[in-house]
Amino acid sequence: MAVYTEVSDEELEAFLAEYDLGEVLGFKGIAEGVENSNFLLTTERGNFILTLYEKRVDPRDLPYFLGLMEHLAERGIQCPLPVHARDGRALRELVGRPAVIISFLEGLWPRRIQPQHCQELGGALARLHLAGRDFPMRRANTLSVAAWRPLFESCLGDADSVCPGLTAEIARELDFLEAHWPGDLPEGVIHADLFPDNVFFRHEMLSGIIDFYFACNDLLAYDLAICLNAWCFEPDGAFNATKARNLLKRYTEVRRVEPAELRALPVLARGAAMRFLLTRLYDWLNHPEGAFVKPKDPLEYLRKLRFHAEVRSPGAYGLEVA
Amino acid sequence: MAVYTEVSDEELEAFLAEYDLGEVLGFKGIAEGVENSNFLLTTERGNFILTLYEKRVDPRDLPYFLGLMEHLAERGIQCPLPVHARDGRALRELVGRPAVIISFLEGLWPRRIQPQHCQELGGALARLHLAGRDFPMRRANTLSVAAWRPLFESCLGDADSVCPGLTAEIARELDFLEAHWPGDLPEGVIHADLFPDNVFFRHEMLSGIIDFYFACNDLLAYDLAICLNAWCFEPDGAFNATKARNLLKRYTEVRRVEPAELRALPVLARGAAMRFLLTRLYDWLNHPEGAFVKPKDPLEYLRKLRFHAEVRSPGAYGLEVA
Repeated sequence: MAVYTEVSDEELEAFLAEYDLGEVLGFKGIAEGVENSNFLLTTERGNFILTLYEKRVDPRDLPYFLGLMEHLAERGIQCPLPVHARDGRALRELVGRPAVIISFLEGLWPRRIQPQHCQELGGALARLHLAGRDFPMRRANTLSVAAWRPLFESCLGDADSVCPGLTAEIARELDFLEAHWPGDLPEGVIHADLFPDNVFFRHEMLSGIIDFYFACNDLLAYDLAICLNAWCFEPDGAFNATKARNLLKRYTEVRRVEPAELRALPVLARGAAMRFLLTRLYDWLNHPEGAFVKPKDPLEYLRKLRFHAEVRSPGAYGLEVA
Repeated sequence: MAVYTEVSDEELEAFLAEYDLGEVLGFKGIAEGVENSNFLLTTERGNFILTLYEKRVDPRDLPYFLGLMEHLAERGIQCPLPVHARDGRALRELVGRPAVIISFLEGLWPRRIQPQHCQELGGALARLHLAGRDFPMRRANTLSVAAWRPLFESCLGDADSVCPGLTAEIARELDFLEAHWPGDLPEGVIHADLFPDNVFFRHEMLSGIIDFYFACNDLLAYDLAICLNAWCFEPDGAFNATKARNLLKRYTEVRRVEPAELRALPVLARGAAMRFLLTRLYDWLNHPEGAFVKPKDPLEYLRKLRFHAEVRSPGAYGLEVA
């Protein structure tokens, strides 16, 4: 769940006095998300999400995230829109934390991914990448290839307790990824965390994308690689090439993709698997006693990494490449 | 938090097809409550709460709880109203669990209790007791005095690990409570769990009472005793006699109370403290590794128990008794 901070009724009332949202009719902590505290806020104006940014988010990044949501929403991307207080500011403070009210997006995230979801996702991701082209701010990806070895080194000595041989396997993979990471592919704004619980659907149609708190400037195709991992493996670990093809085909119909981007997909997907393997491993080894959040299984991503390590061409993802 | 069961979008859609609530626009797990899985369900008709009853609730008790909510709501008590499906049934099944949709009550529960809240609470509790008089079903209180010793015995040997001497102190207290528990006071339907997070307010006025899943037939004054413990102690452990007087005074203005009920308050409050001490102690000693719910501190209730054990007359609760 994700309520790390209690908000008293008095603090909430004082906070909302700065907005034109009418009376509060409901305020309930939401049991989703793992980085921030999220509340469903119901007022006379409707439903909203109130987010308190906890310490894993750098407050200096918030103008980028909020500015990006506004930028994308203005260009027709279905994403949350920060609500401005009467003084014009969207980024405020509550219980000593940066806090923002954003619009409530309608739809449900898919608990069981169907191929149709992946097709919708591909189109929406491409439109997001296109809409981000003229976003003027920049934020480096703090969880890309350069960050993995230091993250790994902070887990050294413990990794084998999760899975014997894991330390050596990750070390070998890092050597490979650092040597083969592509540097000359199209860059732009990427979401960088587009898991199914961040994508809403209504009647099988994509109705919203949320949680832009890992968004950054990086290789566009890396976002596709993250989605391949997050959307195209079955719960039993099998890779579903139909889902992958739906994702990639629709993406490339909306955004023109360079052949080099497609050729790089296996190494990008391998790297994307490494990124989530390492952050999950870190959380697994470092989650505090009595934490509310159950850490996610790092080995799920080790299996995905091994899959991509065997891939020799993007044809494995259902693509026909010249 | 309280989401023990994941509901897939397909299961949710099939479930909601039985209702006339329109399209689902939102479905988010709520991080409150500890017994059941609760979701905020937004549909074209508005906001609702979907509850899945987990194993701590006996399904045979559900008709009592749901019938009581309907009975009270019909008599003007602001409590959730079960939503009936098209076939007339409110109690259904989802993911193999009993499931109910109830109305969404507006208001916020008070994080910091003010004396005014206690006054409102007293009036609402009395109205609830009056409205329950002609409720035809019966349910024994499974957590009253007869249940405490067996519960205590299931903690034996471990209690002193929480606080040295706790085993002996509880044993002495149980002897006292079993010998002095009143038997001839007015009975009726009680809520039995009326903590602040189960009571909503708008503009300092009580706007709703939720969570009837401990409701039962028992001594009416025992409900008052539970509220004395839950509402009238400050976070530092001090008993706030102004809050207690507000609670009791307004209660007695609405429901005529027998002198014997008031005289019994110290022992009832001592017993109410024992009930929550024991269930918290049990949860403290038995909460599973990796559970989402952080167990509540049992010793808070040991301190309350000790306070009431020193009380010689209901005057300590701010009452003037003949």
